[in-house]
Amino acid sequence: MSFNNNVATKFPKLAPKGPSGELLLASERAKGSFDVNELSKFMYTDDWLQRMYKVLEVLENEPAFDKSDRYYLSREDKLASSLWKDNRIVELVREQNWDKTDTQIADLLYDQSTPFTLHYNMFIPTLMNQTTAEQKKLFLAPALSHRIIGCYAQTELGHGSNVQGLETTATYIPETNEFELHSPTLTSSKWWAGGLGKAANYAIVMARLITDGKDLGPHPFVVQIRSLDDHRPMDGVTVGDIGPKFGFNSVDNGFVMFDHYRIPHVSFLAKYSQVEKSTGEYSKPPNSKLSYGTMVFVRANIVMGVRLALAKATTIAIRYSAVRQQFVDAANPKKWDNKVIETPVLDYTMQQYRLLPAVAAAYACFFTGREMLRLYNLNQEAMQNGNFSLLADLHASSSGLKSLTTTMAIDSIEDCRRACGGHGYSSFSGLGQFYQDYLPNVTWEGDNYILTQQTARYLLKTFRNVVAGKAEASEYNQTITYLTQYLENPKAKCPATKPEDFANPELILSAFGFRAAYGIAQVAEQIDRHGRSWNSMLVEISRISKAHCQFMLVRNFIVALQNDDHLAKAENRPMLNVLRKLASLFALHTMEKELSEFLVAGYLSSEQSAMLKQQVISLLEQVRPDAVSLVDAFALPDYFLHSALGRYDGKVYEAMTEMAEREPLNQTLVVNGYDQFIKPLTNPTKPSADGVAAKL
Amino acid sequence: MSFNNNVATKFPKLAPKGPSGELLLASERAKGSFDVNELSKFMYTDDWLQRMYKVLEVLENEPAFDKSDRYYLSREDKLASSLWKDNRIVELVREQNWDKTDTQIADLLYDQSTPFTLHYNMFIPTLMNQTTAEQKKLFLAPALSHRIIGCYAQTELGHGSNVQGLETTATYIPETNEFELHSPTLTSSKWWAGGLGKAANYAIVMARLITDGKDLGPHPFVVQIRSLDDHRPMDGVTVGDIGPKFGFNSVDNGFVMFDHYRIPHVSFLAKYSQVEKSTGEYSKPPNSKLSYGTMVFVRANIVMGVRLALAKATTIAIRYSAVRQQFVDAANPKKWDNKVIETPVLDYTMQQYRLLPAVAAAYACFFTGREMLRLYNLNQEAMQNGNFSLLADLHASSSGLKSLTTTMAIDSIEDCRRACGGHGYSSFSGLGQFYQDYLPNVTWEGDNYILTQQTARYLLKTFRNVVAGKAEASEYNQTITYLTQYLENPKAKCPATKPEDFANPELILSAFGFRAAYGIAQVAEQIDRHGRSWNSMLVEISRISKAHCQFMLVRNFIVALQNDDHLAKAENRPMLNVLRKLASLFALHTMEKELSEFLVAGYLSSEQSAMLKQQVISLLEQVRPDAVSLVDAFALPDYFLHSALGRYDGKVYEAMTEMAEREPLNQTLVVNGYDQFIKPLTNPTKPSADGVAAKL
Repeated sequence: MSFNNNVATKFPKLAPKGPSGELLLASERAKGSFDVNELSKFMYTDDWLQRMYKVLEVLENEPAFDKSDRYYLSREDKLASSLWKDNRIVELVREQNWDKTDTQIADLLYDQSTPFTLHYNMFIPTLMNQTTAEQKKLFLAPALSHRIIGCYAQTELGHGSNVQGLETTATYIPETNEFELHSPTLTSSKWWAGGLGKAANYAIVMARLITDGKDLGPHPFVVQIRSLDDHRPMDGVTVGDIGPKFGFNSVDNGFVMFDHYRIPHVSFLAKYSQVEKSTGEYSKPPNSKLSYGTMVFVRANIVMGVRLALAKATTIAIRYSAVRQQFVDAANPKKWDNKVIETPVLDYTMQQYRLLPAVAAAYACFFTGREMLRLYNLNQEAMQNGNFSLLADLHASSSGLKSLTTTMAIDSIEDCRRACGGHGYSSFSGLGQFYQDYLPNVTWEGDNYILTQQTARYLLKTFRNVVAGKAEASEYNQTITYLTQYLENPKAKCPATKPEDFANPELILSAFGFRAAYGIAQVAEQIDRHGRSWNSMLVEISRISKAHCQFMLVRNFIVALQNDDHLAKAENRPMLNVLRKLASLFALHTMEKELSEFLVAGYLSSEQSAMLKQQVISLLEQVRPDAVSLVDAFALPDYFLHSALGRYDGKVYEAMTEMAEREPLNQTLVVNGYDQFIKPLTNPTKPSADGVAAKL
Repeated sequence: MSFNNNVATKFPKLAPKGPSGELLLASERAKGSFDVNELSKFMYTDDWLQRMYKVLEVLENEPAFDKSDRYYLSREDKLASSLWKDNRIVELVREQNWDKTDTQIADLLYDQSTPFTLHYNMFIPTLMNQTTAEQKKLFLAPALSHRIIGCYAQTELGHGSNVQGLETTATYIPETNEFELHSPTLTSSKWWAGGLGKAANYAIVMARLITDGKDLGPHPFVVQIRSLDDHRPMDGVTVGDIGPKFGFNSVDNGFVMFDHYRIPHVSFLAKYSQVEKSTGEYSKPPNSKLSYGTMVFVRANIVMGVRLALAKATTIAIRYSAVRQQFVDAANPKKWDNKVIETPVLDYTMQQYRLLPAVAAAYACFFTGREMLRLYNLNQEAMQNGNFSLLADLHASSSGLKSLTTTMAIDSIEDCRRACGGHGYSSFSGLGQFYQDYLPNVTWEGDNYILTQQTARYLLKTFRNVVAGKAEASEYNQTITYLTQYLENPKAKCPATKPEDFANPELILSAFGFRAAYGIAQVAEQIDRHGRSWNSMLVEISRISKAHCQFMLVRNFIVALQNDDHLAKAENRPMLNVLRKLASLFALHTMEKELSEFLVAGYLSSEQSAMLKQQVISLLEQVRPDAVSLVDAFALPDYFLHSALGRYDGKVYEAMTEMAEREPLNQTLVVNGYDQFIKPLTNPTKPSADGVAAKL
């Protein structure tokens, strides 16, 4: 090429076909029935929102937090830019005097995991909770000041869910008062640990403790894996990155193997169990249910995270569906300035059916997350007083809710992406990478299928207790309540006689309770009377966990609207009204999705099913005018969304073209590879290949 | 760093924990009840398989077709390697004397779209079908010899599904006998065209033909967009890449805008309609239904593609599930060499429930694809003789089947990925990129939601005809048959009295026919009697399309097993037996998934639902021993799968570590970014930040 190839491609300065996205969204916002800001404050508090906007302003002016290049980066560049962010946030915390909440907000807005994420989320918390004073001084203090950067290595190449099957060993050597870490097989390689691949110099390693010839199963050790001087792997340690993944490529998930690698006695995390020096004698940890409380807390936050994920996905899809116009709906043509225009796709019932229940689900997860946090606090207090009565139900529900809601979230993210049509497939939608990065949630913190077994075990045990008259009703245990009601009248029928009857909250709660109880009773009968094995019942087992948790989501939503003092105020009536519609929509859409279970239970009839479906369509119509306002209330800034389709101002097409202009391939006129691979075909110097090519 | 940083990380030479994947898969293969090769030959023919192995051998020795680096490449490198493949295959066709089938096999095995894909799949076929002799000489001949490389630009930034809404104009200028191509708005930019971004120098452009002041709607033009000398965009043409996508990043999907860009009269594709020189007079194309036949052909191939997609996904997931062991199933511990080992996850009912119906669905799509091709040929022949009686049903079914089966495929790919646990998330599973690249199938060739409306319109029309006594039964029109049966006995009930009754093919077919007819009758009633609008019925409309197409899939599978001569031979009895189990599993699993519709229709009772579920679990047990053999029969080579988890030899863990060793980040000891971003924290020269960091 003799010409200047480094000419960037620019779009001509043209406007999109009108009406513009700005005008369309403005008309949507004018239709809203409630005060958007009030609903935002209700969910987040005014204080949190103000902090969020303050942190946002800082980040928008920080090159290390700039997202402009996020969708174009190679794996290596993603990692480098993540390390920049990890470095810069340490400085920002100091410069801005941010507290924990501010820092969490910054991470939330940045919205991408980095190599240091597990240093903060797993390494430091583990050191805080499981170490002695000496260990805190040795490991926690330098971790807090970033002298050491840690990660958490549990999963192995051959073992994930079954922690008891881990192979890495840590053998106590009394002669030198050391442990010898060893990886006996290829499958024993630690695998998946975030931050381990390239960034961390320390790791919490779960290894089988072997002392005095006895294998005591997996225990945590704090282990140096890289030199503090030059970051090279320690002798005896093979460590690296596990390679590219479906998502999460801004993180260096890593592997590590140990070859008879010696670590000092103090590496064994010794707050709960100890290995005595010289003798190697082992003392067991005190049996404690307290850790179950912590799990409830973690899962309540996961459910709140689901709320955020659904909010993000629906904000993008709803705004774009209000801007995107396709076809004229002949039966009901849309007019603008007295002219017929194509219909915004959000006016099509199918699009509403795909999107509005997901908005309702976001609000459902908000109310359940809030309730879980309330019960967590109640339970922590009760346990301090020796009262463990709340724990079992709370823990079981939280397992199933983690499973159910994260699956709901990932399905909705993908539904929203597809509902954006072709442009949903562009990285600029923001939904593709979001889907990829969110996905691990269905596997980590308990695989979603395996978790349902924990919930089901509790439900079956409670059922047997209720049948035996050994369970006492309590306002904190809805499981006992709905099981008792079911057993009192196992032939109950839904009383609905017209579609509007399905708007009745009591009818909804009875239906969900009955359906859950019926399923539990069936499984109990199969196992207890017919001797079916647990394995052969796994499909039904996952269903009863789901049925129970759908009951919880529906109930928490409905009860919150009945009891919340703030919502009860006269001036908040419009907000309460729209939330009530959402609660009905969430419940009835869920009922429709799971219709076969309500029918099999004999609770609903065919005629009632038709009424139910009619009521769902009617609710879609009722919620439709508030659709954009409801996602606006999530208060998610454009910086967070980083989506051409989901922009607050509706400038979808301007954003698509601006982002396309940044594509690296568009910085040159002629593509790399032209001279080598295209030109020899289009401008051949050899005899033509016409005859042969015709066969293609 | 003063040391040599360019040291690649290598795993120690250790074996995985036993029993090895090789031994586990060998034990699975020993359990198979039928001849795997015979089943492969039945599906592909022996001739095709022999060609496939021959082409495979060539590709495995071609650097341009090497997949080793596929999962690590940046966008730019993906594109460059694709251009290399595009260039090399032209040479290979000549060197190897490949015909069309061989070339298609090479593309299938390479399994990744490239910039030239649409040159072959859209540009050349369009030129073949829609040009005059003069145009063939001018455009088709150089396209076949690769002097020009084309693409197909229809979709615009603002318009996809609604082709009639396209904005780009082509105005005839009688004075110069030219057309003036113009993009009046930003939304009129062509968008998404594969190959347009960087590689093509020509494009078929769909633009509104304007002549003599009249807008005649979108018509195709063949347009030069880049110089044949140096590949620079032509003056008046703004062209580039639309940026990164969720998948398909080996293709340069592009945009193009025209600024009063003149093209000669001969650019208008003039086989079917013409614009007369000078006068600009327009002559309409002859109205032809023939193009509907072609659509059936395209969709039959899409359904065959679904078979391949399901085959690929299940081959990977089933083989890995036979190798991966997790937990000991206490009630039924697995033994190996008389020692208890962890249970291969494929032995868990839930895993079987997640995977085996997808294997059955792959076979279902094979039989339906085959039947569609048979009917396509019958119909082409009939149409030549002026008989259009088959067309409507065939076209309507093919629309719905495209929609239903591609959705089944994409859902199954993701189900299979998740069923691989954590490692499913690694790129090395092969399933992540596969999901991403397959996804456009649910949008292109007709959006899957919109397509269901076509099918439903036909179903409703047929229903009205049957009611009016104006439809005649025919062996080629099953719709009329099941609608007639339904109308004869709209209160029919399923006769099953025990789980095994559900194995009866006649019972299955009656059930699916009744359920489809019931749904169609309900929708007809709502629209015709209650005056419900089409828009408000869209949810139910998509359901009746699905119900009809599930009937077709089930029927084609069952009828093929009843009528196929080859399968009827005594020596093929074991193959027929396993296919029968798969047909039942596919049908009954589908029935269970759609249970609410069978219940609402009043066809199934609660008791029968329980029997149905029992029969599904029983079928999973029956199919389980053949699971690995059934995916082996798909005959998909390791080169094609390119998956660490799905290897034929079961060396899952060896492959995972070998692929991790190739990760670019593992070619250096210390990561790029350490000096700048990590070292300043771990080895600070400034005063420590301990106090502040503690707030994090």
